[in-house]
Order: sequence, then C-alpha cells, then structure tokens
Amino acid sequence: MEYQTPQFYHVMQYAAAADGNVIDMVSGNPDWEPPVAIREGLRKYADSDTKAFQYPPSDGLVDLKNEISVQQNVNPNRVIITNGTGEANYLAMARGLTDDRGDGVVLIDPVYPYYLGKTSMLGGSPKLVEANHDGSLNVAATCDAITDSTAVVMLNSPNNPTGSVYDLEAIEAVSETAADHDALVVVDEVYDQFDFTGTFQSALTLEAENIVVTGGVSKSMAITGFRVGYAVFPPALVDDAKTRHMLINVTTSRPAQRAVVNAYRETNSEYYADSRDRLRSRIETFTDGLDSAGADYTLPDGGFYVLARFEGFAGTMENVKMLIDEAGVAGMPGETFGNAREDWIRFALVTPQVKAATERLIDYFGDRT
Amino acid sequence: MEYQTPQFYHVMQYAAAADGNVIDMVSGNPDWEPPVAIREGLRKYADSDTKAFQYPPSDGLVDLKNEISVQQNVNPNRVIITNGTGEANYLAMARGLTDDRGDGVVLIDPVYPYYLGKTSMLGGSPKLVEANHDGSLNVAATCDAITDSTAVVMLNSPNNPTGSVYDLEAIEAVSETAADHDALVVVDEVYDQFDFTGTFQSALTLEAENIVVTGGVSKSMAITGFRVGYAVFPPALVDDAKTRHMLINVTTSRPAQRAVVNAYRETNSEYYADSRDRLRSRIETFTDGLDSAGADYTLPDGGFYVLARFEGFAGTMENVKMLIDEAGVAGMPGETFGNAREDWIRFALVTPQVKAATERLIDYFGDRT
Repeated sequence: MEYQTPQFYHVMQYAAAADGNVIDMVSGNPDWEPPVAIREGLRKYADSDTKAFQYPPSDGLVDLKNEISVQQNVNPNRVIITNGTGEANYLAMARGLTDDRGDGVVLIDPVYPYYLGKTSMLGGSPKLVEANHDGSLNVAATCDAITDSTAVVMLNSPNNPTGSVYDLEAIEAVSETAADHDALVVVDEVYDQFDFTGTFQSALTLEAENIVVTGGVSKSMAITGFRVGYAVFPPALVDDAKTRHMLINVTTSRPAQRAVVNAYRETNSEYYADSRDRLRSRIETFTDGLDSAGADYTLPDGGFYVLARFEGFAGTMENVKMLIDEAGVAGMPGETFGNAREDWIRFALVTPQVKAATERLIDYFGDRT
Repeated sequence: MEYQTPQFYHVMQYAAAADGNVIDMVSGNPDWEPPVAIREGLRKYADSDTKAFQYPPSDGLVDLKNEISVQQNVNPNRVIITNGTGEANYLAMARGLTDDRGDGVVLIDPVYPYYLGKTSMLGGSPKLVEANHDGSLNVAATCDAITDSTAVVMLNSPNNPTGSVYDLEAIEAVSETAADHDALVVVDEVYDQFDFTGTFQSALTLEAENIVVTGGVSKSMAITGFRVGYAVFPPALVDDAKTRHMLINVTTSRPAQRAVVNAYRETNSEYYADSRDRLRSRIETFTDGLDSAGADYTLPDGGFYVLARFEGFAGTMENVKMLIDEAGVAGMPGETFGNAREDWIRFALVTPQVKAATERLIDYFGDRT
C-alpha cells in the first residue's frame, strides 16, 4: 500500500523521548480548559439511564445535529456527526471520488498532511497548487488546476499551517469553476472559532450545491480526544455519505456526543473569545521573539500556528530533530506539508511556554550566526 | 453507489413509529446495566487533567491495548483500538482487499448484513456459502468456495444471527485453505462473552498468520453506544491497518476508552456470568413459547438471537412490519441476512418482555391457523 502516514505522532514521540525539558509545539492539542459544561455533561451522562448507553442514531444524536444545524443555518438532514473532523473530511473526499468524477484531487500547498494521506488511500491523484506567499488562495492558479478529471478540491480556512483566512469570494470563484467541471469542493472549517480578523464566514453561506463543509469541536472546545466532528453535505449527496459512515463506524461515540450537546447549550461566547485572546497574545509574544531571532514568519489571521523560516536551517525532519535535541523546542517540519514551505517550520501555540520557547530559539539561532 | 444499507435502523424506526406498545426485538442493544465501573470510569475521567482530553495514541490508549493483549494473550503491538467492532471489521476487510489479492469475499449465509454492505463499499465480490442447518460452518463448502481470487473469508462466532459457536477445528481448516490461496480470514468474536457451551476459544489461539480477530465491548459491557472495539492483526499486516485507522478516524474517542479501561480492571467474571444466565433464561422462555406457537427455531449456543420460522409467514420486510402492527412484536426479516434464512425472522432477546412477546406471538399465530 502507498498510504502516506502523517508524521505528527512520529515527531511527538521523538520529542517525548528526548532528554530534558522539550517544549512541545508539534501537535494541535489545545492546552487550555474545555468549557465547564464538557465535564458536567460527562457527569450527567454517567448517571443516565442504561438506554442512553446504547446506539444513538447512526448520523448522530438529534440534539447535536440540531445544535449544529442552528449554528450553521442548514437543514439538520444535511448534517452527519462524525468521529472528529478527520472522519468528516474522509467522508467528503470519498463522496467526491465516487460517481466516475475522475480521480483528481486539488490540494493547496502547503497542505495539511492528512489530506494527502486520505487522497492516496482513496486512490486519488493529488495536484498541489501553491498558495500565495501570505497563505491566501491563489484563485487563478487553483481554478486553472481544475479539469474534468478533478473530483475534489480540498480547502481549509482558517488554514493549517499558514493561518490564512480565505476570502469568501475566493472560495466562491473556486466552487463555480469546480461546478463547471462537476467537482466537489470540501471546506474544512475546524478552526472557525479561531478567526482573528472578525470577517470569517462559513462557506455554507454560499449555498452551493457542490460544497461540503466539515468541522468539529476538537479545537473550539479543546477536546481533540473526544472525536466529535460533523460534515454538512449538499442535500443530493448526503445519503451516500451517511451510508458510508454507517458501514465504517456505525455511529459516533455517545458519551462524547452528549457532553458536546451540553457544552453547545451551556457555553457562552466569552469562552471562545477568551481562547482567541489567549492565542493572539501568544502569537504576539512568539512573533516578537522570531523578530529577535532574525527569522521570517507568516503572521496568522486565524488558527493555532505560526510558520517560521530560519536562515540556513530548512524545515527538514533532520533539522526539527536537531532543534528538539539542541534547543529543546519541537515543531513540525515544513517538508511534511507538501513542497511550498520546505524551508519552514510550523510551531503550534498550544503551550503556556511560548515565551520560554522564543528565548530558546533566540539563544539557539543567535549562537549559530 | 451501490452500498447496501443495513436495515436495522429502518425496522427500529418503523417499530418506534407504530401505534401502541411494540416489544422491540430488532436491535442488538443490551437492556441490562453495564458494569458499575463504566459509570465510575466516566466520572473519574470527567475530573481528569485537561491533557487527558486530548488525542490519545492513534491506535488506542496503552492501558486499553494492554488489557486486551493480556486477555487475548497477544503482543499489544498487534492490537488497534477501533470505533467499535464495526470499524475493526472494516479495517480487517479493507486490509484483505488490498495487495492485489483479488476481490472475492466469502461470506457465510445467513450473513450479518453489515458484512455485505462493507463488501460492496470496498469493491469486493461477495460469494455466499450456506451454513449447515444448525448454523455451524459447512467446512467443505466453505473451503470449496475459496479460490485464488478470494481476498477475505469473513466468519462470526458466536454467530449473529444463528447463535452457532464454531468449532475451532472448523476455523482452522478454513484458515489453512485460505492460506493456500493467500486469503485473509477475519473472525468477528464480538459475542465471545455470550458462549453458552463453555467451549468457545478465540481463533487467536490458532496463531495463524492469515487470521485477524475482531471484537469489542459493546455487547459484553452493554455499551453499544460507546464505540469501543479492537482488531488483532497478524504482525505483518498491522501497520497498514493502523495507517488506515489514522487516516479515517485519527483515533478512538477517549472518554469511552478510559471508561472501558476502568471496567476491564474492576469487573469480575460474575458480571459476565450473570449476563449469560439472563440470556439463557430468556432463550428458554422464548423457545418454549415458540414451541407453543408451533414455530420452528434454531436453539442458539451463543449470542443474543433466536431465528424462528412460522408456517406460511416468510421473513420478509412486509411480514415483519405486519407483525409489528398486528402483534406488537418487532423482529428482523430473515431476508436481510442473505438468502439462506429468507423464511425466518430473527428475534433479539434484549428486552425484559420476552415472556409477553411469546404470548403475543402465540396469540397471533394461534389466531392465524
């Protein structure tokens, strides 16, 4: 088989096994508290009737589908509750790659590695289109890449790893070109609560018949381990996706779904605003440090990550391991995100030790020059 | 697409929507209490550190893999914790259907409908081999069905829907023939704790290099909604399956995994013995009633189900709906389990109303004759 295995776990394990105190900026695991209602929801669920421990509907608890459909202003019949955004993306890409649409998958470079892995697993042929230097969608190049053999265009906004928040007009232009070629556009919006511009709008507002939006609460509620995500399909495409979900997973874990329903109901907007403020402050601290270290970087408009480039220190797995061993800071090699950012390293700002990390980077790269 | 959609939810919904008090004997949802340690495990988890809410290892919590590897006497590296036995079967069948092994899938008829659905979704060609009248494996016919184009032989013991517990020698003979044709044998043992013969042994004891064993705690711990299962692969095949699991689901929901670890540690054998005793007693009540109703049936050696045949009342969807509407008893049509039991109806003994159900069936079929 030729699956591409995402390297996150590999780097995390290397960092964990390294001597001394390594600051982990590899994974997208929030380090802050989930909403109080998550813990409370689990406790309530633990006390519930035995019946509540059995299979929920295959496409998800009605209460949870309703919460999401209200938030996204869509019919709940279009919603499938999935085992995290990962499964949602899988279902969407798989749906696109059926019906003899061809096997082409257009991906934006730098690319989240799981998209590449899913593409190869599903027998798709990836075509990488380079993003603009600031991470925004290169609309002309993306539309040029879409042909009659394109089955899926995979987008992600707010973007991992660039932090770009795509213009809705850019997504619309891509989806119109995709529609001309009978291609599906999948927009992964898992970082939707981490928009620092205040301008983010879901691609669902375009009401396009060839757009699937995926998302989840792993990041927004700081519970990556719960595995609660969703996909919102166009009405004509949802039934087959529900069947695929049923045939692989039967349904999504109920204790996690129930806790998330409780958190949707009981959590106010302040929780999400606090999370954004925390990240904004960390981004400022980190990029100030990068300035002092003489590094180049992309200032994110959304998400958890900062891409940085250090002179003469490419974003290879080898260099990242050296940085772990010699500087005590763990990031993700840019080379694992396609080709466009091979010189860069991605740092996840999900640690309270951002300040310490910048000091280590300044020391390390200061010593080198 | 040509996915076959399992009909369980359809019948359950029909029964739920019917007028009056319908006794639900459709689903395999236990109606008894899970181990105390499940509720307790969820409560403990709800109080745990934020870190414990983030991604566990992709192939499962180390503690949970260890519990299963000790119980099954295998190396934990061979174990993948899955989103229920459903995902485990999917991963195993998908693994068999790669590597140019051919696309043939040998299934035993009557067949659990999800196996048929997974086969069609994975592009496999199903070949149904009729079980013996008592539900046991027809070894000669099964081996005859295995050819060089066979990728997977799918077995299930204790069996749903027949209740047969396969002889280990029968599985061994099939796996040896499969090995001669480079085919993988998948043995779904999710009902392993519901063996009434006292003779059941896992197919893992055969130590064959072409056997994958799948299972889970949905039935044994009465938590079908938690979605915690596992697959034990031969060492040479496990890595690709782990990657597929990662690329579809990333990992299995952590609150559920953590509760199950607690239940493995804290639950003694009495809990499982009580569950078996409860089912044995229900089977006796139900089959006594079937005798009175003049029905034919298969006495199960394991599992949750009794297959019954009523003279002149075939196991069609139409008849099952009539039985719901007119007798107030909901079963599953035999025609949804392949071809071999089209005249039969499957009743799940997961209700305290087994006695009442038999009375309704006696009334109904007594009136008809």
